[in-house]
Amino acid sequence: MSSVRVIQVQENVFAKNDREADRIRRTMTDQGTFFVNVMSAPGSGKTTFLTALINSMKDRYRIGEMDVDIESSLDAQRVADLTGVESLQIHNCGLCHIDADMTARALAGYDTKDLDLLILENIGNLVCPAEFDTGAHKNVMLLSVPEGDDKPLKYPLMFQVSDLVLLTKIDTLDYFDFDFEKAEERILALNPRAQVLRVSALTGEGMNSVKSWFEAEIAAVKTLE
Amino acid sequence: MSSVRVIQVQENVFAKNDREADRIRRTMTDQGTFFVNVMSAPGSGKTTFLTALINSMKDRYRIGEMDVDIESSLDAQRVADLTGVESLQIHNCGLCHIDADMTARALAGYDTKDLDLLILENIGNLVCPAEFDTGAHKNVMLLSVPEGDDKPLKYPLMFQVSDLVLLTKIDTLDYFDFDFEKAEERILALNPRAQVLRVSALTGEGMNSVKSWFEAEIAAVKTLE
Repeated sequence: MSSVRVIQVQENVFAKNDREADRIRRTMTDQGTFFVNVMSAPGSGKTTFLTALINSMKDRYRIGEMDVDIESSLDAQRVADLTGVESLQIHNCGLCHIDADMTARALAGYDTKDLDLLILENIGNLVCPAEFDTGAHKNVMLLSVPEGDDKPLKYPLMFQVSDLVLLTKIDTLDYFDFDFEKAEERILALNPRAQVLRVSALTGEGMNSVKSWFEAEIAAVKTLE
Repeated sequence: MSSVRVIQVQENVFAKNDREADRIRRTMTDQGTFFVNVMSAPGSGKTTFLTALINSMKDRYRIGEMDVDIESSLDAQRVADLTGVESLQIHNCGLCHIDADMTARALAGYDTKDLDLLILENIGNLVCPAEFDTGAHKNVMLLSVPEGDDKPLKYPLMFQVSDLVLLTKIDTLDYFDFDFEKAEERILALNPRAQVLRVSALTGEGMNSVKSWFEAEIAAVKTLE
């Protein structure tokens, strides 16, 4: 009996979250802002990647960034310093994820209405963030070569909810045993609609394809505005 | 009012968990088994490290291993195949951590009473596992060079609850910007009693110091038996 009650509570929590997420997504669509949620394990290179991406796009697009961390403001500061865009640090009080309600509260203090692209850098965690719709139009996740090609087998939900999977730090391939074909096969078995791209933010390899994906998504939101 | 109620519920959950954890710890002490909980981010090399450690100690000690994963049985199988010790896979149904109650249920199906060393390989996550006492005598966490030396600033609780912090994959240092002194300083600022060791499971560098730490802990539990 008690486990059934727990499941019921969880369903209610998720239903409430999904309603709030839909509301955020509608607002973003109405104002013509492509809102993207970027997830990965700790140390996959989210901040380095996002800094490189923002710098390659900021002359053509108005970009904003929100950064979730438990305590520090390191990442938001790094993004702001290295790109010049406005970056908002969200402290999530020790929680392991960000949900739509937390996103809404952050957005209440951040004027995003003129932005073409709003990036949410989620907390480094391959489990919990995958469970909560943040209100983003699309989910992007990074899997770095040093982490290993078996991660889709071990954290399936993260790969199932991601629209774009970036295999990152490909410049370190000589140093690690990582099989791209196996990784891609495992990702597509979980999520046949996922797009998988290989990239190094350090050398720039693959960054043009990633940029094209973002440009197409920004254009797609503008057509719905 | 509602947030105060939530905190109260959490306190009760943790108090119940702590009682169960203490019960597990007493049982392990009484039977002379050193029980250790090993945590890290995904892809830090827990399984490779544990395989090397077990192989270097299995001639002298009776060792068991329990492996937590969301869905797959990859790691338990790998440990069993590469070391020959009995390894138990725990599927935690999509949760992001393991608590004392889950540990107790796993132990109910696993005869550990003749073991000198029982290793719990926790799920790859730097947030949630740090919040739950599993009943282990000591916590060990791995931070790999590719993840970066800023992780103690971003996931402080994990470093606060760890007795031994292993800086792993030191063979990849030429490839990454990782400052050992900074990492150690940050860890000790959070947790002055932590022991910090540098290790490569691949080359074997530093493994003797780690082995000595485990041997001393096994001996310490035997004196309490």
